[in-house]
Amino acid sequence: MAARDIFHNAVKAALQKEGWTITHDPLPRLYGGIDLYIDPGAERILAAERGDERIAVEVKSFLATSLVSEFHTALGQFLNYRLVLEEQDPERELFLAVPFDTYNLFFTQPFPQLAIQRHHVKLIVYDAEQEEITLWQS
Amino acid sequence: MAARDIFHNAVKAALQKEGWTITHDPLPRLYGGIDLYIDPGAERILAAERGDERIAVEVKSFLATSLVSEFHTALGQFLNYRLVLEEQDPERELFLAVPFDTYNLFFTQPFPQLAIQRHHVKLIVYDAEQEEITLWQS
Repeated sequence: MAARDIFHNAVKAALQKEGWTITHDPLPRLYGGIDLYIDPGAERILAAERGDERIAVEVKSFLATSLVSEFHTALGQFLNYRLVLEEQDPERELFLAVPFDTYNLFFTQPFPQLAIQRHHVKLIVYDAEQEEITLWQS
Repeated sequence: MAARDIFHNAVKAALQKEGWTITHDPLPRLYGGIDLYIDPGAERILAAERGDERIAVEVKSFLATSLVSEFHTALGQFLNYRLVLEEQDPERELFLAVPFDTYNLFFTQPFPQLAIQRHHVKLIVYDAEQEEITLWQS
């Protein structure tokens, strides 16, 4: 299994442990004729629900050599997916899921913090090995 | 010369034709100890001035196989660079430079239009072959 799929499945298992039901994997998204998943390299978005809460989760592995570069891509994807959700499924909240070592190393630094606050990016921090969510940050 | 550098140099030449002086190539950017150029694959940012106008330009070639995927990355980069400029050089305006065929094919569609409007992305549309700017969109 590709490393990226291992992370993806770990987040799924972690959400299920917290009582979420996975409703879509991936969540299909089309907008104005553009398929947001057209890139075979793009991360798939999970959808889950628990009671009356509904979320979508963009799982990032941060396995690329440059965290900064992967952060640019993750942010752009997140904001574009959120725009699509606002139009097509406005009650569903979008989260960006990042591994806890990447979170500790990178996301706690001033620049990523500023970007996340400015764009109101909601984070799920996960432990891929334990298949657990260590932090929800809204 | 790498294709990406040809596009980069075409935008430089196009700006010079319109009376701009290239002041930095690349514009060095550091924030909170993070080098935003740490990724060797990241596009360099040009800086130019004309009279009392000062701009920074993120030149994108859109040579990747997926326009949607490259758009995610371009948007994330643009927003992150703009955050850095707001802090470090607030009078300088940031533009995203895109080739005119990509603009016609992709950027005129509803989803990219929505994203560009929502995030107030300023565009320079360029003709790489003629080394000319065909549109400034603020």
